[in-house]
Amino acid sequence: MREAVLRACLDLLVEGMVELPATEVAGRSGVNRATIYRWWPTPADLLADAVAFHWDHRIDPPDTGSWEGDVRAVVTEVAALVDEPVERAIMAAMATGRYPAFSAVVMGAWRKSLPQWTGMVQRAVDRGEVRPEVDPYSVVKILLAPLIATSLLGEGGTSPHELDQLIDLVCRATTARPG
Amino acid sequence: MREAVLRACLDLLVEGMVELPATEVAGRSGVNRATIYRWWPTPADLLADAVAFHWDHRIDPPDTGSWEGDVRAVVTEVAALVDEPVERAIMAAMATGRYPAFSAVVMGAWRKSLPQWTGMVQRAVDRGEVRPEVDPYSVVKILLAPLIATSLLGEGGTSPHELDQLIDLVCRATTARPG
Repeated sequence: MREAVLRACLDLLVEGMVELPATEVAGRSGVNRATIYRWWPTPADLLADAVAFHWDHRIDPPDTGSWEGDVRAVVTEVAALVDEPVERAIMAAMATGRYPAFSAVVMGAWRKSLPQWTGMVQRAVDRGEVRPEVDPYSVVKILLAPLIATSLLGEGGTSPHELDQLIDLVCRATTARPG
Repeated sequence: MREAVLRACLDLLVEGMVELPATEVAGRSGVNRATIYRWWPTPADLLADAVAFHWDHRIDPPDTGSWEGDVRAVVTEVAALVDEPVERAIMAAMATGRYPAFSAVVMGAWRKSLPQWTGMVQRAVDRGEVRPEVDPYSVVKILLAPLIATSLLGEGGTSPHELDQLIDLVCRATTARPG
């Protein structure tokens, strides 16, 4: 039942109904409004849970044992993820700047997962693969941003050649033993 | 008169009226519809000209004489540019995926300016500062994408510390003499 409600929310997001109107959520999930309000008192609660449900196990940073392996895995997985309709809908709604409460919920979920991402960089520092002076957050950003920007603005995603280039640039930017 | 029309278009973009309805453009610019249709037969013509007008001299890649100087100048200028209302409105409209003709016009304008950007990288290669094997387009992308992604998704732009980190990472990723 929880899953039916959250899936209905994700469908509504894809259709641009960012406010998640309770009548729509009830109609599509077959769960009545009273129950929805009891479990998720505000639309923000509903959205936060829908985003958490959507991201669950989807954006776990990899742990391949090597920095280059992790970078390659992240780039490959995230490039596919950001082209999914739900992900595109979430980012497009944020990009309009018209739904600050929505953006706050999504950014909150992102910040909650951030220690896992910076932890991936920290493990590589601990293995001596990445320079200890790097700012892990900036590394995560430079890794993900080209994929996000291409999905939002570009036509048809990032090519395999561009993914290889991104992996190479990020590894060179961070590696403890240059060359 | 051309300027009045194009400024009216940019105002409409900021307000989310991406289709640039001729009646609105005429009303705001004080130029009659017949004249607008004569000069810009289609909304795409109008949009292309408005974007060109807006970008004119705004996104000329710098030529400071050094790669690090150029990278710093780009990052500083673009970080300010992507937070302007017109720029945010253009990117938000593209991000919705609902205006393919609009996106095509903007991407066309961007592609037209692309040789200047890759030329900036090529000059650094010619000076021996940047590795000749880099793909100039990928370098431009990794330089601009974090600024674009932060403007579209983040709250309150990129901090000076993050700009410094980005500059450092890009220089290390590209430099011919690492270390």
